[in-house]
Amino acid sequence: MTAPLIPRLSVIGVGLIGGSWVRALRLAGQVGHVVGCGRNEDNLKRAQQLGVIDSYVTDPALAVVDADLVVVAVPLGSIGAVFERIVGHLPAAAVVTDVGSAKGAVVAEARSKLGERLADFVPGHPIAGTEKSGVEASFPDLYRGRRVILTPLDETRSEAVELVRRAWQVAGAMVSTMSVAHHDEVLAATSHLPHVLAYGLVDSLSRWTDREEIFQYAAGGFRDFTRIASSDPVMWRDICLANHEALVDALERYSADLDALTEAVRQRDGERLEAVFRNARQARERFLAMLEG
Amino acid sequence: MTAPLIPRLSVIGVGLIGGSWVRALRLAGQVGHVVGCGRNEDNLKRAQQLGVIDSYVTDPALAVVDADLVVVAVPLGSIGAVFERIVGHLPAAAVVTDVGSAKGAVVAEARSKLGERLADFVPGHPIAGTEKSGVEASFPDLYRGRRVILTPLDETRSEAVELVRRAWQVAGAMVSTMSVAHHDEVLAATSHLPHVLAYGLVDSLSRWTDREEIFQYAAGGFRDFTRIASSDPVMWRDICLANHEALVDALERYSADLDALTEAVRQRDGERLEAVFRNARQARERFLAMLEG
Repeated sequence: MTAPLIPRLSVIGVGLIGGSWVRALRLAGQVGHVVGCGRNEDNLKRAQQLGVIDSYVTDPALAVVDADLVVVAVPLGSIGAVFERIVGHLPAAAVVTDVGSAKGAVVAEARSKLGERLADFVPGHPIAGTEKSGVEASFPDLYRGRRVILTPLDETRSEAVELVRRAWQVAGAMVSTMSVAHHDEVLAATSHLPHVLAYGLVDSLSRWTDREEIFQYAAGGFRDFTRIASSDPVMWRDICLANHEALVDALERYSADLDALTEAVRQRDGERLEAVFRNARQARERFLAMLEG
Repeated sequence: MTAPLIPRLSVIGVGLIGGSWVRALRLAGQVGHVVGCGRNEDNLKRAQQLGVIDSYVTDPALAVVDADLVVVAVPLGSIGAVFERIVGHLPAAAVVTDVGSAKGAVVAEARSKLGERLADFVPGHPIAGTEKSGVEASFPDLYRGRRVILTPLDETRSEAVELVRRAWQVAGAMVSTMSVAHHDEVLAATSHLPHVLAYGLVDSLSRWTDREEIFQYAAGGFRDFTRIASSDPVMWRDICLANHEALVDALERYSADLDALTEAVRQRDGERLEAVFRNARQARERFLAMLEG
């Protein structure tokens, strides 16, 4: 029997994202002992009962003892505090990674808190999730066929990147690397911007007159369009704050395009409207083909 | 055996919307002979083979001969021409209705083309549909539990409204009446605005740099959010043109709210962002409860 890829794993923040990765590693026989860590002991007990973690502690400094890989899967707003708490306790060979949706802010925290252990930190972001959250919702196939983006720094050891890459590949993910800034621009466009637009629309409509009646006549298209407005408000507040620069850029670009589209409606410029709608439908068809291919 | 509600029905434009209504009426035994009318004879043949219509003609003037109810289910841009062609051929007791998504423009055409037969016209709009179109996609349950809005005019005969209301109720729909202006405001908010936002987003992103890459990292949330951008560009061009006043109002209100939200991101106003996101999620939960209830 060969040794697993990660003899001892520490997962700080045991929810949907961290829990699903651990489950996938277990299923592949690529992880030994898993220590969970979090502030809510009931949640940790539940994670242990579910077989996601083998043991748990509530202090991140204790969680990283003897760890080969430390997965920081806490909300964006808490990552800095975790880095600060673990940095003096990391084993010499330990690799650290995270799963945050905005990388610039996480890397800034890492630069400020991890000192020379920055070389062992691999910023990561799995593009996966469901509208559910919590370890109960975790499942080993969450990452199968999904993309994971790593944004290693100039300082990052290549062995650290390779370990994290392999651990994601074991979970069935397609791993890419790109720069921190590029990641944040791409995600601002395809994820953070749509979330703000959907939240904004439902919030707007809820404050218009006859709002109850308005929703009464909404149909299936509206339900799909606003599904992401049912996401966790605190998590999305944190993402918007963490990626505010790229998000403001994306919002401004979108807003300018929307002004032009509004003008086309005002001018009854049918040719222009049809061209935009046609281009959008074609672009979406290419996107769907890409997802399937 | 009692007589059906509609001994002879004329359906001008035999696609998803008209075809599904006829199928529901047939299933309930509430329609006698159904004459289909359209410009594409292959489509009419297919509708006859499918048992949706009993016979067909390509001239609307001939289609309405002896009709008790005339359903005009052609694209918004063609309704005026149909009115003009049928008005001199309508039987004395015939009732006319339509299924257009914007009522102000249809009513303007009716006022200009139907003359004294305006009293027999019942503007209607079923809030139902799928991303598919065409008679092949029609099915009798499309309207079950869905809303249909009628916007009768001061001139409309109450018996005409009652006939159309019953015909929709036979199909399982919940029928409401409201003013033309109010319909157009409500639909601008819950349907036309989201469509323009979704089309606009996909079009914007498709013109940003690295556009292929951008779509590569989009996930399920993006797919749901942009589903309505796969709708028929010509149909949506016509809806935007027909309802341009209410739609411009809705776009301007949304745009002002979006500017405020952008400012909150720029100022890193987490409290404000969380309040908006939280209100949106709660409003959407009420909306979903309404849909189910």
